[in-house]
Amino acid sequence: MSRSWWGWGDEEAQLGAAEVATLTERVNMLLPDHDLTDHQPPRPADLVLPEPRIDAPAALAELCSTTPADRLGHARGKAFRDVVRNLLGDVGHLPDLVVRPRSERDIVDVLDWCSGAGIAVLPYGGGSSVVGGVEPRFDGPSISLDLERLDQVLEIDATSRAARVQAGVYGPALEDQLRPHSLTLRHFPQSFEFSTLGGWLATRAGGHYATLYTHIDDLTESMRVVTPQGISESRRLPGSGAGPSPDRLFLGSEGTLGVITEAWMRLQDRPRWQTTVSVSFATYDEAVEATRAIAQSGLYPTNCRLLDPGEALVSAGVATGGLLIIAFESADHPVEAWIARATEIALGHGGTVEATRDRGEQDGDSAGTWKSNFLRMPYQRDALARRSMVVETFETACTWDRFSAYDAAIRTAAQGALDEICGGGLITCRFTHVYPDGPAPYYGIYAPGRWGSTLSQWDEIKAAVSEAIATNGGTITHHHAVGRDHRPWYDRQRPDPFAIALTAAKRALDPAGVLNPGVLIDLD
Amino acid sequence: MSRSWWGWGDEEAQLGAAEVATLTERVNMLLPDHDLTDHQPPRPADLVLPEPRIDAPAALAELCSTTPADRLGHARGKAFRDVVRNLLGDVGHLPDLVVRPRSERDIVDVLDWCSGAGIAVLPYGGGSSVVGGVEPRFDGPSISLDLERLDQVLEIDATSRAARVQAGVYGPALEDQLRPHSLTLRHFPQSFEFSTLGGWLATRAGGHYATLYTHIDDLTESMRVVTPQGISESRRLPGSGAGPSPDRLFLGSEGTLGVITEAWMRLQDRPRWQTTVSVSFATYDEAVEATRAIAQSGLYPTNCRLLDPGEALVSAGVATGGLLIIAFESADHPVEAWIARATEIALGHGGTVEATRDRGEQDGDSAGTWKSNFLRMPYQRDALARRSMVVETFETACTWDRFSAYDAAIRTAAQGALDEICGGGLITCRFTHVYPDGPAPYYGIYAPGRWGSTLSQWDEIKAAVSEAIATNGGTITHHHAVGRDHRPWYDRQRPDPFAIALTAAKRALDPAGVLNPGVLIDLD
Repeated sequence: MSRSWWGWGDEEAQLGAAEVATLTERVNMLLPDHDLTDHQPPRPADLVLPEPRIDAPAALAELCSTTPADRLGHARGKAFRDVVRNLLGDVGHLPDLVVRPRSERDIVDVLDWCSGAGIAVLPYGGGSSVVGGVEPRFDGPSISLDLERLDQVLEIDATSRAARVQAGVYGPALEDQLRPHSLTLRHFPQSFEFSTLGGWLATRAGGHYATLYTHIDDLTESMRVVTPQGISESRRLPGSGAGPSPDRLFLGSEGTLGVITEAWMRLQDRPRWQTTVSVSFATYDEAVEATRAIAQSGLYPTNCRLLDPGEALVSAGVATGGLLIIAFESADHPVEAWIARATEIALGHGGTVEATRDRGEQDGDSAGTWKSNFLRMPYQRDALARRSMVVETFETACTWDRFSAYDAAIRTAAQGALDEICGGGLITCRFTHVYPDGPAPYYGIYAPGRWGSTLSQWDEIKAAVSEAIATNGGTITHHHAVGRDHRPWYDRQRPDPFAIALTAAKRALDPAGVLNPGVLIDLD
Repeated sequence: MSRSWWGWGDEEAQLGAAEVATLTERVNMLLPDHDLTDHQPPRPADLVLPEPRIDAPAALAELCSTTPADRLGHARGKAFRDVVRNLLGDVGHLPDLVVRPRSERDIVDVLDWCSGAGIAVLPYGGGSSVVGGVEPRFDGPSISLDLERLDQVLEIDATSRAARVQAGVYGPALEDQLRPHSLTLRHFPQSFEFSTLGGWLATRAGGHYATLYTHIDDLTESMRVVTPQGISESRRLPGSGAGPSPDRLFLGSEGTLGVITEAWMRLQDRPRWQTTVSVSFATYDEAVEATRAIAQSGLYPTNCRLLDPGEALVSAGVATGGLLIIAFESADHPVEAWIARATEIALGHGGTVEATRDRGEQDGDSAGTWKSNFLRMPYQRDALARRSMVVETFETACTWDRFSAYDAAIRTAAQGALDEICGGGLITCRFTHVYPDGPAPYYGIYAPGRWGSTLSQWDEIKAAVSEAIATNGGTITHHHAVGRDHRPWYDRQRPDPFAIALTAAKRALDPAGVLNPGVLIDLD
């Protein structure tokens, strides 16, 4: 398999003819006037790239690559706006070098070199950022520091169920190394195949599961981080109250404070029992109330994913007021009592059981359909991006008391922007995570764009919804991170004294200001 | 009720004659040669106190107290070493003033005044610190900033189950204000009666429950903190991935970065179902293995408290190799399936059910006995401190793989110190919290001391066990905080780059260095 330089995932996994036909047929039905011409990505060889402006010291030279495919592939993440720019052949800023350290020692040397020479360092995991987190969006020289060679599980502690893992390991390679021990990290973000442990830690990634231990923050026992001021290593501890948590400062630091090289991660036994129920509701309000009740029940379902009518139709092919997918799984015990009570709560709020599925069965129901679509979504987005559609997601979180008004404000802002900018479009929503005190809604946007303008069209829509999020007190990101794209709204969200503290911490750890400039904070 | 200036809790709740008789009889049996003379605390009026060295500005004068009882009562926390010094009439350093702000505005004004005048500010909640966290252990002028007037629940959001609460509220007053809404914070540290929300937040307090949401960190939705550089207020969010968590920097900051004035806290419905099972084991190793299996089962018991043989005998009056108290409770559903599986796991590891108790029954079994003793323990400690005993606790956490060796190293160090310093003594242990990746053991020390020397005797023992903790890679505190007493070992535990970052953050937020000097970090 070869990674796509311009779009999501692997070249070989792009949509086949049949999948494209289904997709375009669906779009054609909704938007009969839309021009579905396929705009193919340019070939890297046809693009004129600026020459690298820097040379690595001899000792580091063998770690460096300047091939066009490498530099283009590391120039930006995988957001819609990244893909569209690639499709347009808009080269923009490129890292001068792609550097692939073999060891932590190499990373120390690279940081020494770059700090001394004033070269920006952009830590790079899988490059699946959708917030401009890995993009050298500035004029000075830069390197992309790709950790892919640090891909090993170094140690397993089966008693405590934990493993010491190098940061550059991709999701599948990590699980492959844990499987022989019957253990799993059980962290499955949508980007799982194309993102790394270090990226998850640096961006506070959210896993596939809806409640309890699903965020990478909670799965982290200790971390090792190379900073320009030395290596930070926290102790392996199941819990500690010794001052503010060191790990929590580096979690979410998005490469601005140091380069995460390894971590002890909390693992779980591989699940043996699993039951999923899909429940359909007549109205979305009922569905939301049922979801809240389950989120507050203390049952902690593995999954508790609410699809709004648009999402249920687009992704699961079901016409409903709201489709709630509830699942429990366990490595220790059958989950009947759990699923029974959760289902009872859902029915008590007016739901109707659509399907029940025990482990092993795969397809033929809406939950199964939804799950297989889940991993194809980014590929579908790219196929539509090539066909002048504006297709993107954004996500947030808020407390339950405000959800209804918040959701309405966001939809109003989004629909207003879609109508004005694209002459219409569809907004869908699902809850990716639910907490006792609120949901994390994840919105999808589908709108007809004009080829050549879809980037600016999306940027305008994004600004409108971000403004609605900020004005209504939500978070500009629940699990996609801040990067460069969310900066203006993050700056408003972040308490000022915390900004003062974080800036001071950054200045102390990275006095040359070389680590991922423009992300989270500015030193000047 | 009136608070004891010298010891734990309320004067009126001190041990009665019968309780003293039982206690001394028990000690007499174990240590027939120990001198049990009762050394009564001095009266504040009999102590010679240094005059206050500072005057508050006129506008703040009415917030200030200089009464001996106030200054003595705020001079230190409630550790054994604090109580002993009080009993000896060792006045030591006192705050010059006790200041009780009425509002956040007052706190801003106090910080302005103190920052300008170079007066140290020691934020004070309930004063139950056992780590020297509220003590002016330095020579310059200081004030104790007592938040007791900020004691209101300001707002309740029943839909999201959250409340906006002022930091100075004590545990019982908080629960009293939540009860009419059928809600509870459900945070019950042993100090519950004599500690405040602000203190819990500043020290990352651990609640009574053994697993899941029991740490105050996880119960916190947003915080408001007055710093010398302005007020920090995070947004109310159920989850967010926007940069490193602002709240996690202030959680555990122990008054060094700002004064926490209020927080939105996550609440729960009041439990309706509750079942407790006590399981006895022939050997401690079996009991530990059973506890680990339950901690890793995904059942998340409300309680999962393992008492070692010494603790079971002293606190629950049971002779056993290990007594495991398992409880489940729920506001939503009966807990039979949960307790049945947890019991099955315990029996599978060689346990024998000792007692089962459903909600409502109170006494007559070891779990019940243990619970009622739990709240009396600090009072008993004080009664024994008056009778020349060295009685104190210390707590830590480690991963399961190392527990056996870690526990042995700590007991060896402790027993060695006890034998050498006190000519013998008893060490007990219970797990206060259990995680999938490790337990938090909590040790008790009971040894015969010499009146006038028990302080130095304890300090030597504490240094020996702290050294064992540090050498063996545990945490110097799991939920008692760092304060001044744990500083040398905290400094070794904390990663150097994190110390650099935290010091820079402190310097930026508190440039005059007035906030709780000597705690966590030094600016010079």
